[in-house]
Amino acid sequence: MTEAPSHRFHPLDSGIVPRFAGPATFMRLPVADPGEVDIALVGVPFDGGTTNRTGARHGPREVRNQSSLVRRVHHLTGLSPFDILRVGDCGDAPVNPLDAAESLALIENYFRQIHAAGARPLTVGGDHLITLPILRGLRSTAPLGLIHFDAHSDTYDSFFGNRYNHGTPFRRAVEEGLLDPKRMIQIGIRGAISDAANYDWARAAGIRIVFMEEFISRGPADVMAEAGAIVGDRPTYVSFDIDGIDPSMAPGTGTPEIGGFTTREAQALIRLLGGVNIAGADLVEVSPPLDPSGLTALTGATMLFEILCAMAARDPSDIDPPPR
Amino acid sequence: MTEAPSHRFHPLDSGIVPRFAGPATFMRLPVADPGEVDIALVGVPFDGGTTNRTGARHGPREVRNQSSLVRRVHHLTGLSPFDILRVGDCGDAPVNPLDAAESLALIENYFRQIHAAGARPLTVGGDHLITLPILRGLRSTAPLGLIHFDAHSDTYDSFFGNRYNHGTPFRRAVEEGLLDPKRMIQIGIRGAISDAANYDWARAAGIRIVFMEEFISRGPADVMAEAGAIVGDRPTYVSFDIDGIDPSMAPGTGTPEIGGFTTREAQALIRLLGGVNIAGADLVEVSPPLDPSGLTALTGATMLFEILCAMAARDPSDIDPPPR
Amino acid sequence: MTEAPSHRFHPLDSGIVPRFAGPATFMRLPVADPGEVDIALVGVPFDGGTTNRTGARHGPREVRNQSSLVRRVHHLTGLSPFDILRVGDCGDAPVNPLDAAESLALIENYFRQIHAAGARPLTVGGDHLITLPILRGLRSTAPLGLIHFDAHSDTYDSFFGNRYNHGTPFRRAVEEGLLDPKRMIQIGIRGAISDAANYDWARAAGIRIVFMEEFISRGPADVMAEAGAIVGDRPTYVSFDIDGIDPSMAPGTGTPEIGGFTTREAQALIRLLGGVNIAGADLVEVSPPLDPSGLTALTGATMLFEILCAMAARDPSDIDPPPR
Amino acid sequence: MTEAPSHRFHPLDSGIVPRFAGPATFMRLPVADPGEVDIALVGVPFDGGTTNRTGARHGPREVRNQSSLVRRVHHLTGLSPFDILRVGDCGDAPVNPLDAAESLALIENYFRQIHAAGARPLTVGGDHLITLPILRGLRSTAPLGLIHFDAHSDTYDSFFGNRYNHGTPFRRAVEEGLLDPKRMIQIGIRGAISDAANYDWARAAGIRIVFMEEFISRGPADVMAEAGAIVGDRPTYVSFDIDGIDPSMAPGTGTPEIGGFTTREAQALIRLLGGVNIAGADLVEVSPPLDPSGLTALTGATMLFEILCAMAARDPSDIDPPPR
Amino acid sequence: MTEAPSHRFHPLDSGIVPRFAGPATFMRLPVADPGEVDIALVGVPFDGGTTNRTGARHGPREVRNQSSLVRRVHHLTGLSPFDILRVGDCGDAPVNPLDAAESLALIENYFRQIHAAGARPLTVGGDHLITLPILRGLRSTAPLGLIHFDAHSDTYDSFFGNRYNHGTPFRRAVEEGLLDPKRMIQIGIRGAISDAANYDWARAAGIRIVFMEEFISRGPADVMAEAGAIVGDRPTYVSFDIDGIDPSMAPGTGTPEIGGFTTREAQALIRLLGGVNIAGADLVEVSPPLDPSGLTALTGATMLFEILCAMAARDPSDIDPPPR
Amino acid sequence: MTEAPSHRFHPLDSGIVPRFAGPATFMRLPVADPGEVDIALVGVPFDGGTTNRTGARHGPREVRNQSSLVRRVHHLTGLSPFDILRVGDCGDAPVNPLDAAESLALIENYFRQIHAAGARPLTVGGDHLITLPILRGLRSTAPLGLIHFDAHSDTYDSFFGNRYNHGTPFRRAVEEGLLDPKRMIQIGIRGAISDAANYDWARAAGIRIVFMEEFISRGPADVMAEAGAIVGDRPTYVSFDIDGIDPSMAPGTGTPEIGGFTTREAQALIRLLGGVNIAGADLVEVSPPLDPSGLTALTGATMLFEILCAMAARDPSDIDPPPR
Repeated sequence: MTEAPSHRFHPLDSGIVPRFAGPATFMRLPVADPGEVDIALVGVPFDGGTTNRTGARHGPREVRNQSSLVRRVHHLTGLSPFDILRVGDCGDAPVNPLDAAESLALIENYFRQIHAAGARPLTVGGDHLITLPILRGLRSTAPLGLIHFDAHSDTYDSFFGNRYNHGTPFRRAVEEGLLDPKRMIQIGIRGAISDAANYDWARAAGIRIVFMEEFISRGPADVMAEAGAIVGDRPTYVSFDIDGIDPSMAPGTGTPEIGGFTTREAQALIRLLGGVNIAGADLVEVSPPLDPSGLTALTGATMLFEILCAMAARDPSDIDPPPR
Repeated sequence: MTEAPSHRFHPLDSGIVPRFAGPATFMRLPVADPGEVDIALVGVPFDGGTTNRTGARHGPREVRNQSSLVRRVHHLTGLSPFDILRVGDCGDAPVNPLDAAESLALIENYFRQIHAAGARPLTVGGDHLITLPILRGLRSTAPLGLIHFDAHSDTYDSFFGNRYNHGTPFRRAVEEGLLDPKRMIQIGIRGAISDAANYDWARAAGIRIVFMEEFISRGPADVMAEAGAIVGDRPTYVSFDIDGIDPSMAPGTGTPEIGGFTTREAQALIRLLGGVNIAGADLVEVSPPLDPSGLTALTGATMLFEILCAMAARDPSDIDPPPR
Repeated sequence: MTEAPSHRFHPLDSGIVPRFAGPATFMRLPVADPGEVDIALVGVPFDGGTTNRTGARHGPREVRNQSSLVRRVHHLTGLSPFDILRVGDCGDAPVNPLDAAESLALIENYFRQIHAAGARPLTVGGDHLITLPILRGLRSTAPLGLIHFDAHSDTYDSFFGNRYNHGTPFRRAVEEGLLDPKRMIQIGIRGAISDAANYDWARAAGIRIVFMEEFISRGPADVMAEAGAIVGDRPTYVSFDIDGIDPSMAPGTGTPEIGGFTTREAQALIRLLGGVNIAGADLVEVSPPLDPSGLTALTGATMLFEILCAMAARDPSDIDPPPR
Repeated sequence: MTEAPSHRFHPLDSGIVPRFAGPATFMRLPVADPGEVDIALVGVPFDGGTTNRTGARHGPREVRNQSSLVRRVHHLTGLSPFDILRVGDCGDAPVNPLDAAESLALIENYFRQIHAAGARPLTVGGDHLITLPILRGLRSTAPLGLIHFDAHSDTYDSFFGNRYNHGTPFRRAVEEGLLDPKRMIQIGIRGAISDAANYDWARAAGIRIVFMEEFISRGPADVMAEAGAIVGDRPTYVSFDIDGIDPSMAPGTGTPEIGGFTTREAQALIRLLGGVNIAGADLVEVSPPLDPSGLTALTGATMLFEILCAMAARDPSDIDPPPR
Repeated sequence: MTEAPSHRFHPLDSGIVPRFAGPATFMRLPVADPGEVDIALVGVPFDGGTTNRTGARHGPREVRNQSSLVRRVHHLTGLSPFDILRVGDCGDAPVNPLDAAESLALIENYFRQIHAAGARPLTVGGDHLITLPILRGLRSTAPLGLIHFDAHSDTYDSFFGNRYNHGTPFRRAVEEGLLDPKRMIQIGIRGAISDAANYDWARAAGIRIVFMEEFISRGPADVMAEAGAIVGDRPTYVSFDIDGIDPSMAPGTGTPEIGGFTTREAQALIRLLGGVNIAGADLVEVSPPLDPSGLTALTGATMLFEILCAMAARDPSDIDPPPR
Repeated sequence: MTEAPSHRFHPLDSGIVPRFAGPATFMRLPVADPGEVDIALVGVPFDGGTTNRTGARHGPREVRNQSSLVRRVHHLTGLSPFDILRVGDCGDAPVNPLDAAESLALIENYFRQIHAAGARPLTVGGDHLITLPILRGLRSTAPLGLIHFDAHSDTYDSFFGNRYNHGTPFRRAVEEGLLDPKRMIQIGIRGAISDAANYDWARAAGIRIVFMEEFISRGPADVMAEAGAIVGDRPTYVSFDIDGIDPSMAPGTGTPEIGGFTTREAQALIRLLGGVNIAGADLVEVSPPLDPSGLTALTGATMLFEILCAMAARDPSDIDPPPR
């Protein structure tokens, strides 16, 4: 039996408290203030950047619900992230469902506080626009690298004349100096596009785009080796759009795209993040109204645990302290 | 056999073309320009005014789909609205899903054109905020009366500091002089409220609120007699929020409230509109992502037909020409 | 404790065999040959007469499944039909899903055998066309009377140039002398129609049509008193189309029509059948693919039990022996 | 504007914090210890007493989720229970999903502590067996009265040779002297039964059973006047089985029975509880796996608010202090 | 930016008109007459050839709906089929849901007109029987080749004594000289069969059957190279039964068979069609009543786009003009 | 045409009796007594060993329903198990849903009778606890080997202080001498665990655990070669937990775990069982309330057929007679 650490941030024991009991927090962890934890599990219930099918605002609630099925110890490594790090449920960022601009400010501020408290955020969205204010909140002396799993590159300039929506966050983040395009890689991109020139900006900026078809032919290990080389050892953000995964395994999302990652591939990809200096991560675009079976939220919750393990895999003392 | 009128605006004949065939227009009617018709069936696929559960943006599409089940002749009166009036599918108003203010302007403009063309609009939403720009588009020399069926009075002042959302349209419309509060009645209102003072503004303004409990004890005929007296013979708008109907019969809506109208009551209410001078009408808050069975959209489509019959029941020559 | 009768046709005891156990037969009764029983529960899995949304072919299977929830004794009368009559599951009539004409012949033949064996059939459809071959199979020296609960009168002449479909069975049955139109009553009819002249044939033939609106104002007792007077004491067929019930309570049907019977009204109606000389009965148009919750099949199974009680309520010795 | 009371037990303000945000507690209330509150909202996630279709163990979780739609102030009375009483989410009673006997002891003990702390429990089940250990936990010097809304009387002696299941709690409670059968009324009972003698024990014990059919003919006011007379002014428990409500409005339950209460009737019934000395109450048999739309949990959450208002309606100083 | 061609057959721009707006046509393209287009997108809403679970009659409607998610430009090739070819929605073929023989004639005639107008049809079914009248409509001087993706070979002789159903079209088409069996290949065939001799006729006729297991071991490129060799350069029809794809990715179909193509494999297969001289193509057996999530229709719509790109990939001037 | 054997145990012919007709037995086979058959298809509708999400008690009923889609002849081998062996539906084992201990005894006794009758059982659960009493019922002179496909090893010692639940059967079976741990292999194990020491007992006992990740890298043939070597030629039990398959392909199960077997892999694994001396087999944890689409039950039914073929593949005369 692994010896339990002395802190209070343990998931409930499922041999004593049934998984279906009590209010649902992320992974059945205690509610926490950011200052108490190493990893802050946070929800951002905002989908005001969605151009077509909304619903991701309900993502944090349902991922909490399904994360009751998450267990403690990774079966391959035998390590529990909860033994290594203090992990807690830091609630949801405030948002204004009627005002995207105000929401961006509220979210940024919330993450600035988490960052200031010394915790690394592991966030559940919300649509992909939320990554922009998160990155603003984590803003530091140098831009972050990015490893981005998604069906879509989200580097459009605008939709409907609007520059801040879930199709544009990474373009804005590069423009604002939050991300270093030379240290960015997008994996799993696929599907028809609105314009043949769609990827030109990204490529010109130096972003590496790995189409799904390239991924299929090379496999996770080869692609992630390249990803590691691109982001290097400096702080890097990890963004996981659930629509990167195939819609048979994650149907509840606003912009499904057939031909996606299997969950086995997605797990393999995340497990290969081990050496990356992860400054924060998110899982976005889980849309419960489009997910009656709950499978998408379950897939999301399981990927959240994998990402958490990746964040715990590297000796915390080896993680750059959050530069303030 | 009723003699068919000479115009081209007939629903497809279900004894020849199956109800499941072809692209879905409202009631299987031809696509039309507003200038060609007496009644313009219009969609407004906008739900940017929704504070909690979105999805009404998909309402027009799915009401079109379910309206394939609508037939031609009312079984009680024996009249077909399509024999009396030219009715067509005038498409959807343009909207910007990322910009509520722009959407209000786009919708207003679309309805101004319909109004100018001499057609009366019968609209499918979208959330209830859309009624505001519709009323702006129909703005005339005098404010309109209102008969409003709903679980909620939608006369709040603001939510999240925002004054233009689906909880506020009727307050704004009164403030803007679009509606005459003395000629307004709201029927079916029920459910707990956020603040005990919620209805004070409405009552002070002179709006008549009929709680569901009062409706239950009085019945449709008595309540609608009062409604007729309140709105009188001058032009009146009819707004039907699908959540006025019980969630067992219309589950697919963002703010369901148990204890609502049965569909039989709702049909009775609309059939008692016959003498009203209807300048336009809408059916709002059908949210297909929350309606997997399609029953809500079917209920909505059937109510749309009932409203259409009510609009046709009064001799068109007796309807005030749209004042421009 | 009611003394158990000596025959073998008892439902399984739910205090010993769980309701979810074993293959599903109607009401957990034994499989039987028609010659062994007084009432033959039969399925007719045919929906080849359906003009729009099919699926009723799966009705018998799913009504069997949901009928596992049916119990033994009526709570109001205290009588168990199984103590009075031998009731068994006589399987499904043979059908050819690719050939309506052949199916009509197969079904007719199956019911002729049941009739010849001296059992009264209580059938689960299938779409409403099946009532025609059932009536042919039950053909006797004199036409039967009919009490018919439905949203639609099903007395059209043809659809798509076809005279044998689920919109026409009662017209054909009258034309063939199977039913006496003067002893026919249709209750619950409602909804828009394709042609204003739709009901003219029926009325000219002498069929009594009770619109839902008339039913609402008069109530079950008054309407059923009239029904009893119309059919008199001679053999009468009872046909219950599940779409007579409101789609909130029976959504899984091909042609739902809002504003229908509540189940409480439907139960009251059937309980008022007690004095009728029931020669056979059916429950049709349950469409499981449109009924993911199973509520429609459950409603159907419960109505089947009520009809069975009505068939058992009259002293069997007082029922006309099946004339052969 | 009602002046807010000084205690901390307020629901979150939905004009500031969206209803979809954060972990779900009952009615978005703070988590509380029983000693801090007047009314303890408690979950009992146990369905080990279920003979057929399980799932009620998930009831507390999903009722919490849907109760985010509950608001603060009753629209008819204008009073907020939260202004009158301190109400908090006291979590779930411990249970052992693999051991019914141990669960009964754990639940009893949990409610004994709530009772000792001076709070009145308002509980969400779980199946109906949980009412037995709750009543044991509330055991006082004298048996309680009972007002019981349900489709089933739950006074069987045993199923499968087992005397402690969701068909037997009220028989056991009478036998154990927890309830006074002369002060018990059961309303809404209906549906076929397994044995004609089913109700004999209950009637012999003096329990008043009001079948649904009697309720329909008399109406809520008359029945509840009788209920008030039966229970009198002494402490009384209120138990609401969600299957008392019609399955069209509450489909997600293990033993649905057509022909039930409408929600309007259910609301009327609860509102007529105002004068009753309510020692505790529960809402049971919500089964989320059978409720994909969430309508049952929403109905349950709304009824919970109505019961809470009934508990708050009587001046708390007029409520018997919990006898210890 | 690709320069837009001068014709009017463009999908709506999703940066201006939201994907959820307006009536749904295939890929949001204009309605067209066959004479106006190079590729005619057509629906055939007929499932009267189905032996078990029907519903494919609703396929065209729902594929239209889900095809709103289809974009303009293939991400791998950078080409838009809409820039190369005129593509429009040519509506649905007339059918008689009550008469298979008449439907076969109606469908044949409709496709004869399309063929005569010089357009190549890309059709959405309907069940697989529709391929037979389509091939009759396209009948030319020489039989066509066939590349057929499916779980089933559909070369049975008859079911229920009926020779024209969705299990027999390819046998009939060979017998009628519409297809050249030596130029036919069926890929993905799998699952238990009714008779061990099932494939004997096909093999004797010279049809190449590639079982799923052979496909798995060889991969798309190798199999499609063989397919290309088999059909050669002469006109070839492509038929894609959605049940070729695994039911996890395409659950909404009448005869699901586990162990199917992944969508990635399906996309790879279609992309390898580039050199084939495609005279027409279809996508069949999408059954919306069995597809509540819409995933099957979405998968179908995306495959439709892939097939369209394959039809556009070959220089149109290099496509044989439709021989008349 | 394969010559039909002389026994009466044939599935219904789907070219004559539609697949949707009649009560559902396993694979549309006759009901049988164990003494009449070589393979007894049996249901065990018990889920009282489930710690979290129940529902597997409904598994046998729904697998029967979906197994109507199963056909007669394996497409790869061309053999029909029904031609080689007598296979019948032997009904469900008796269970007590309220008493796990009694259920264990009832189930054991039922399987002892099957074993004594000389039939090999092929069972549908029920949760995984049922394997324990099945193995007790099959107890012979020597412990059996085990090939076990699952996401979980089910070798825990206890949950909630309870030693007999669906997480412990294989530990109990080894302790009781029913299984020989040296002849046990578990394939597909994956997912986070509650304790890092979880697998220690199993490994110490000599059980071979093949994690999913090892399976992915080695493939079915290599792993099954090892399995064959481990179990050797002596009698071996095969247990297939449906959650071994990926939740996209088998969502309806209580403890889904992403990253599972594809159905193609599952089929390949079972087909490689051909040489194993199979004394009995089961398929467990199909939970219909969590499987609204029926895909899980369909997957289960298809796997059941594959297992049946594996049981038939070895010359029956070469199978050890059941030692009594």
